[in-house]
Amino acid sequence: MIERRSGVALWRQIADRIRLAINSGDYDATGMMPAETALAERFGVNRHTVRSALAALAEEGMVRAVQGVGTMIERRDRLTFPISRRTRFSQGLGDQAKETEGRLVRQGVEPAPPAVAAALGIATGTECVRLETLALADGKPISLATSHFPAARFEGIGDLYRKTGSITKSLSALGVADYVRRSTEISAVHAEGDDVRLLKLSPGAILLVTTGINADAAGQPIQYSRTRFAADRVKFFVET
Amino acid sequence: MIERRSGVALWRQIADRIRLAINSGDYDATGMMPAETALAERFGVNRHTVRSALAALAEEGMVRAVQGVGTMIERRDRLTFPISRRTRFSQGLGDQAKETEGRLVRQGVEPAPPAVAAALGIATGTECVRLETLALADGKPISLATSHFPAARFEGIGDLYRKTGSITKSLSALGVADYVRRSTEISAVHAEGDDVRLLKLSPGAILLVTTGINADAAGQPIQYSRTRFAADRVKFFVET
Repeated sequence: MIERRSGVALWRQIADRIRLAINSGDYDATGMMPAETALAERFGVNRHTVRSALAALAEEGMVRAVQGVGTMIERRDRLTFPISRRTRFSQGLGDQAKETEGRLVRQGVEPAPPAVAAALGIATGTECVRLETLALADGKPISLATSHFPAARFEGIGDLYRKTGSITKSLSALGVADYVRRSTEISAVHAEGDDVRLLKLSPGAILLVTTGINADAAGQPIQYSRTRFAADRVKFFVET
Repeated sequence: MIERRSGVALWRQIADRIRLAINSGDYDATGMMPAETALAERFGVNRHTVRSALAALAEEGMVRAVQGVGTMIERRDRLTFPISRRTRFSQGLGDQAKETEGRLVRQGVEPAPPAVAAALGIATGTECVRLETLALADGKPISLATSHFPAARFEGIGDLYRKTGSITKSLSALGVADYVRRSTEISAVHAEGDDVRLLKLSPGAILLVTTGINADAAGQPIQYSRTRFAADRVKFFVET
């Protein structure tokens, strides 16, 4: 149902409806979007609005306009991330992506805020390395993570991550041969600020947010991270 | 960062920012929102826009205007739902709600669509009871579920649910003394149509969507459900 005067622009509502239809497989038979005039009629809006909606979806990489052919669907299935004791970005994706990449966006050292300290079992204010990392699958940005590690034990993890693009490899180089996910919280919010830009989202897009605690083989918490996933690109899977 | 010409109205962006601040505990010290003029200055918008944002949040039940006092914060913490083998609505909430309720919105019998049939391990087209149910906590709508049960075994579950308001009790009356959650998928989408109305959401609100399979003690799948949670009101917790 398209709602006028709702505070969400018509083209954005139409883009959301089309995205849902694509993800539900409505256009799988042809792999093409219907003509703009047909979409305009279906949603009861003018062609200009439909064109804006398709442009937003093209920017997200959902569709692609092909001269003389029409609007092709580029992508529908969301990547599935298992949430388990073995939760890791690249391994979790398995054969869903040909190539994964991890980029260091920012690093620093800061005193642990209360929530971080509680999760890591350290005193509030204890020095932590803070990393902002961007994970990509086949060149598309998937998630942005803010991770805290106790600085006394994990100094230098930022430079290791920059070289390896992998938390697992960086931890291994610092003597953590194995680690497990202890717990994960999952929520969803509207994307804002830098997250919109770095994840290449359109305004109003949704983030799936996980806050996770990883622990070493001895059960000691080593990493607390808050990861924002582009909700259009992923779903989570929990086997119980 | 407030973005103009983004397709999302200013008042909606401000409402989302304020909601996030409330949930982060920014105003916990007083339990009150700052004055409208202060908020207008902070976000660089006029008072009219701030007032619209606060009105939207009041409609969600996040804040409440009190004559002569100001805008009080009504609620911040999201209900936490554990996702585990014992996933059940009321029990999962524990002492987070004084009272929970389950309402039957709609019931019917229909042939199982392919996705439902695959989940339940039955042939596509096998008759299933389909229930639409609304779950409330302390009078607030939390989630809407569409559940399918094989009709041969669970005829009458709709009427049982209407009487008991509980899937667990309804299954028990049909001979399923215990059941477990086998798997859960989690994604997030913008709310649409009936979901907006029944969950009392504002336009543009986010749904956390779980698709879950429950099985009886013998491992036989008995229920497949797609549940839409108001993302502002809940988060999920997975222990691994």
